[in-house]
Amino acid sequence: MIGDRRLYPFERSFATCKNVEEIAAALKAMVTQGGGPLQVALTTLRLIANSPLEEIKRGVALLSNSRPTNTTMRRTLESIVAKIEKHPSKERGEYLNKLIDKIEEAYDLDYQAMGSFGSSLLKDGDVVLTTCFAEHSFTLSLMKAKEEGKRIKVMVPETRPYLQGSRLTAPSLDEVGIEVEVITDAMGAHFMEQGEITHYMTACDVVAMDGTAANKVGSLANAIAAAYYQIPYTILALSPDTTLSSGEGIVLEERDGSEILQVRGVATTLPTLKGRYPSFDKIDPKLITNIVTPKGIFTPSEVGEAYR
Amino acid sequence: MIGDRRLYPFERSFATCKNVEEIAAALKAMVTQGGGPLQVALTTLRLIANSPLEEIKRGVALLSNSRPTNTTMRRTLESIVAKIEKHPSKERGEYLNKLIDKIEEAYDLDYQAMGSFGSSLLKDGDVVLTTCFAEHSFTLSLMKAKEEGKRIKVMVPETRPYLQGSRLTAPSLDEVGIEVEVITDAMGAHFMEQGEITHYMTACDVVAMDGTAANKVGSLANAIAAAYYQIPYTILALSPDTTLSSGEGIVLEERDGSEILQVRGVATTLPTLKGRYPSFDKIDPKLITNIVTPKGIFTPSEVGEAYR
Repeated sequence: MIGDRRLYPFERSFATCKNVEEIAAALKAMVTQGGGPLQVALTTLRLIANSPLEEIKRGVALLSNSRPTNTTMRRTLESIVAKIEKHPSKERGEYLNKLIDKIEEAYDLDYQAMGSFGSSLLKDGDVVLTTCFAEHSFTLSLMKAKEEGKRIKVMVPETRPYLQGSRLTAPSLDEVGIEVEVITDAMGAHFMEQGEITHYMTACDVVAMDGTAANKVGSLANAIAAAYYQIPYTILALSPDTTLSSGEGIVLEERDGSEILQVRGVATTLPTLKGRYPSFDKIDPKLITNIVTPKGIFTPSEVGEAYR
Repeated sequence: MIGDRRLYPFERSFATCKNVEEIAAALKAMVTQGGGPLQVALTTLRLIANSPLEEIKRGVALLSNSRPTNTTMRRTLESIVAKIEKHPSKERGEYLNKLIDKIEEAYDLDYQAMGSFGSSLLKDGDVVLTTCFAEHSFTLSLMKAKEEGKRIKVMVPETRPYLQGSRLTAPSLDEVGIEVEVITDAMGAHFMEQGEITHYMTACDVVAMDGTAANKVGSLANAIAAAYYQIPYTILALSPDTTLSSGEGIVLEERDGSEILQVRGVATTLPTLKGRYPSFDKIDPKLITNIVTPKGIFTPSEVGEAYR
């Protein structure tokens, strides 16, 4: 069962999957996204932990291929496969479960560290623009800043077509007591021009060793506007991809264009028209001020050194 | 009766107004927008042409105040009042109708001229990004370019919250045989980064004598991205405002934030959250390449000279 992020907060329902094929299909259909697929994939591995190695490898391939841009899931799963291959089949299930325990604990610590680094970049009175749903490290940054007595407001673009901003980010920040304003995806530059925004902060789906990042489409427009108005842009990068020497290697997923011709099932135009849906932007390192990782805060040009 | 642009193309229906108060309320509620209110206001004046002068002045004030940013309607109505004041009341109705005939003919010629100037800036193979619904001068520019054998594709951001892009611009361009792709408001910069867009072209609600323009929110984000990627930005300005010496005097309307928490009546987030809805962006002249007016094509710094 995967919490269906496409329906939250209007319905709190779960997608039920019977096998790895159905789980991979659910990830592709964006039942969950961002950091969600990694968590789902680790849980899936637990469920098939006692299957033959070939079955586990087939599952890993299915899961890894469900979304091409965010490589954290793929890299984590591949490192797991490399480790369990060496183990005798009888002990593999137990070993795999312990390995996943460790990985999950490590990610929890990583998120906490990123929350501390993130909050250290925020100051009392900041108005933070974000894009999409920046997950744990963003929420933790804001919660820690709040604990430290800093008053922060967050402007949240709705994030069309699936409204991760208005449906996930805004209600979850509101729930933990952070002041939130929902805006449309077109308004980031407007509020920068008006002097209302002091910091731009997003997660990223992948960051390469030259500091190029990819994140939800719309991140780039706000990054360019932030650079134009000299507002710092901080990205939160859980796991810089050491296999990508530069942004050249980043695969940008382009989804079915008809997905953008609706909002929650309601048509936005004639169904005969053509839509386009590139899910992710590639963001030039020179547009990025800070890259917050579990290891610390880096400039884009420092990240390769820190992770190589 | 005003064609209800909020429902097109899903319904072809009309809002019926019984008096000037109801017409002004319909303009405020955005039954029509962009250049629509001017046309509605001229038709309204015809209906009350034989009323006492004070009644006409009251009507003009109501209409002028319905939307503050686009000043073309206000300036046109005020110039009409200045002229009819001098006329004896018995002949006023007939004179007013003739005056409006002349104004409408002049605007038609202006649109044709702007279409010619606009098309001259487009070249075979161009992919044009727009924002919102740029009306006659934009459609005419594209139709003339097409007549001249230029193949042009237009990328149309949907334009939240009221979807003027996906509902009005895209279907009307498609209807006249222009190739169209609908995108979300977040995607302009993405397609510039990918090298797909070669020209950015919008209307504007007002342009001041220093070349500062205001247009639908979202225009600015795309203008900054176009400058970043060195893509020309052309604005179509029916009536530069000679009463505004600089952008300082432009009034940016901020509408009720709850209007953005829905799409065609469907909620996009929890109703308890706060939305923001600035309708218009102010665009710095240094972001604008060409200003197309009925008098010709100018750079932002030339427009004051040409109109003063």
